[in-house]
Amino acid sequence: SGPQPHPAARRATPGARWCARRTRPLPPGLLEALRDVVGGPNVSTAAAVCEQHGHDESMHRCAPPDAVVWPQDVAQVQELAALCHRHRVPMVPFGTGTGLEGGVNAVQGGVCFDLSRMATISELSLEDFSVAVEPGVTRKALNSHLRGTGLWFPVDPGADASLCGMAATGASGTNAVRYGTMRPNVLNLRVVLPDGSLLHTAGPGRHGTLGFLTQATLRLHPLPEAVAAAVCSFPSVQAAVACTVQVLQAAVPVARIELLDEVMAGACSRYSRLELPEAATLFLELHGSQQGLAEQQQQAEELVRLHGGSIPAWARAPEERERLWSARHSAWFAALALRPGCQGYSTDVCVPISRLPGVVVETQQDLRDAGLTGPMVGHVGDGNFHCILVFHPEDPDEARRVHDFAERLGRRALVAGGTCTGEHGVGLGKRELLREELGPQGLDTMRRIKAALDPHHLMNPGKVL
Amino acid sequence: SGPQPHPAARRATPGARWCARRTRPLPPGLLEALRDVVGGPNVSTAAAVCEQHGHDESMHRCAPPDAVVWPQDVAQVQELAALCHRHRVPMVPFGTGTGLEGGVNAVQGGVCFDLSRMATISELSLEDFSVAVEPGVTRKALNSHLRGTGLWFPVDPGADASLCGMAATGASGTNAVRYGTMRPNVLNLRVVLPDGSLLHTAGPGRHGTLGFLTQATLRLHPLPEAVAAAVCSFPSVQAAVACTVQVLQAAVPVARIELLDEVMAGACSRYSRLELPEAATLFLELHGSQQGLAEQQQQAEELVRLHGGSIPAWARAPEERERLWSARHSAWFAALALRPGCQGYSTDVCVPISRLPGVVVETQQDLRDAGLTGPMVGHVGDGNFHCILVFHPEDPDEARRVHDFAERLGRRALVAGGTCTGEHGVGLGKRELLREELGPQGLDTMRRIKAALDPHHLMNPGKVL
Repeated sequence: SGPQPHPAARRATPGARWCARRTRPLPPGLLEALRDVVGGPNVSTAAAVCEQHGHDESMHRCAPPDAVVWPQDVAQVQELAALCHRHRVPMVPFGTGTGLEGGVNAVQGGVCFDLSRMATISELSLEDFSVAVEPGVTRKALNSHLRGTGLWFPVDPGADASLCGMAATGASGTNAVRYGTMRPNVLNLRVVLPDGSLLHTAGPGRHGTLGFLTQATLRLHPLPEAVAAAVCSFPSVQAAVACTVQVLQAAVPVARIELLDEVMAGACSRYSRLELPEAATLFLELHGSQQGLAEQQQQAEELVRLHGGSIPAWARAPEERERLWSARHSAWFAALALRPGCQGYSTDVCVPISRLPGVVVETQQDLRDAGLTGPMVGHVGDGNFHCILVFHPEDPDEARRVHDFAERLGRRALVAGGTCTGEHGVGLGKRELLREELGPQGLDTMRRIKAALDPHHLMNPGKVL
Repeated sequence: SGPQPHPAARRATPGARWCARRTRPLPPGLLEALRDVVGGPNVSTAAAVCEQHGHDESMHRCAPPDAVVWPQDVAQVQELAALCHRHRVPMVPFGTGTGLEGGVNAVQGGVCFDLSRMATISELSLEDFSVAVEPGVTRKALNSHLRGTGLWFPVDPGADASLCGMAATGASGTNAVRYGTMRPNVLNLRVVLPDGSLLHTAGPGRHGTLGFLTQATLRLHPLPEAVAAAVCSFPSVQAAVACTVQVLQAAVPVARIELLDEVMAGACSRYSRLELPEAATLFLELHGSQQGLAEQQQQAEELVRLHGGSIPAWARAPEERERLWSARHSAWFAALALRPGCQGYSTDVCVPISRLPGVVVETQQDLRDAGLTGPMVGHVGDGNFHCILVFHPEDPDEARRVHDFAERLGRRALVAGGTCTGEHGVGLGKRELLREELGPQGLDTMRRIKAALDPHHLMNPGKVL
């Protein structure tokens, strides 16, 4: 979540990627059979289309599928999966392509299921606070649909991602401290297994490599009556984190609390013309009733002052708040603007909040020692933070240093009792770290469960396990 | 949650149960090997001990294990499991025995692992809002341990259950509407698999039949600054539920909201001497800051009045609130007092809140038609409600009617888009309903996952699947 390029940014620089070659041709007759299910125009083997579906927003090498299909409903997904299963051809789900870990890259070729045209929103119940969405429905599309109902879906990873994709990676984001991550907000899933059978689950699960999520039933929340946002500067990262802990302990029902280190605060300030000090910074947002909000603001101000910080002003009007959060959500571009012509890579560790100041200070030192640019932004409420590494794509030495740094950071998080994957998922880049995190037994257990549901290793092979 | 007999009540009437015979003797040498691991006094084959471990609080027939072992730490659990695995002997975990679905009954004999002596509380972090507990730690023991820290663990199913057992069944309870069920409050689990290997999971899972939960890391919450409770009477169940929906939609951060039907309100009133009207009733509790609470109370009062209800008074002092909630938590005994000499059985369905009034009214009619006594109490915030059926243990016709009623109620919940198991787990009694709820594909998927982790079907066999 957080730092992500807009899809348009990716499409603007297709030449920057190089593509892996296909591993083997599709078996004879399969393409015709796929066309019989979805109709000719909904199957493509065009190189440009396959390349477009062979990568997400991450720097992982493009790995195009051999064909792309666009099913229109769950029955078609089942039929297509059954066909691929019969022919033992790998299948890869594709939503919006906004992932950050190469989850959609077809590393063993096969058929990409582009689910973006399944975009039905159904079963909206204002009394039950629930709604069902298909994989083509994005976060923003759902919230537009909900306008006027008094309800909203608060999980916000920054990108306008597919909600089913967010369920698959366990997305988090800026509102998680108040409303939770995807986990408590997914009520049910409808999953097509690799053999084409349909499964209804009660409760969420991470199914990115187990099956196609064809519907997610989500928990909705009442829109807050009043909202106030503020940017607070602190003398140090330690002070900002200590303040966050006290805000949480005092049960101030803060909706968002985001940390920027001094480099990122400066970058965002310049990029979004905000005139922030180059200091450790918290972006805060409070949700409540009119009356309750005033009390929350007072509590927050006292705690910020107690830790040597300052709140210059509260933003109450929607356009003012939008300006602040747009600056926060532009962190990715603000970081890239530090070194024009470079590309970005976002790490995704999560540590217990008590360890956050130490890990951040060590990581800043590590960046200096390695001679890397990596401003930081974090969902400090749950200890999840991202370093946006900005490096030159044609400098192999720098790319190696980025890679080594990311591994050291992942290990640092594990030593601190954290995880190498706060919210982006494991995908391609973090498989070795996952092994260290889970241990051989944990990985073996995941493998056994995966093999029970996908004995022929057809569902998104080469990822995670 | 909610209606549960106190353990003492069970122990007072052991003669009311009859025990299933053992299926086969333990293989030679196994008992000696178990004693070598935990020491002689920590292994028992005494009939009284085995019978005591052969049932929980439910009416399922006692099924004693062939032996009971008391491991002292996780390494011993691993060694004991490896021994049972090698001898292909079933294993059953046992915590406090407060379950309601026969989850601990050793229906195929084998070795019962009584984990109550593993009762370490560790890794308490006030900054990270987390703590790790072993299976012998109960909800009340943890909250006693936390006294003075400003934090607490709010999930409260009524019984003083093992927290690891609560993680295994996905327990809910009166505070779930504000603080969530076990799912978002379990951060990590340490699980011993049937072959003795140790697994660390990130995030919770329902592992009651997959392995021994030997440690759960829990999310703690700040204690509220101020608390107010009230009992509100309504003209009908429909009015009480409609009021609940509006309270939730208005984002009043209600901590508990519990529904009693008119029969249960009358029973509780008489049992706990509260002088409540015999009417559909909501027990409410609000948590907040001093100032915020006043606003919440005002909002709640307006909405209650709008639906024809009344709030006679707010209880602010701890002893006053305790008196109200003690009445609510005595619902089980209040129901039993309706027919002295009878026994109780609690159903556990959950439906979308929009369907709750209709399902409750149909269920009340069904009770009348079947000539059964079954007052109702529900966690109305999430649509979970219990009928406490009070019936004579020596009247086989009544027992049959109770059984048929419970099946009809389960089906009614499924038709309404709900579940047959809100929080007690599936255990022994609801296997057929689970099949209907999940469909053959869902059950098959659960079976495949179970078989992947427990290929010899040794872990708590005969339950759920």
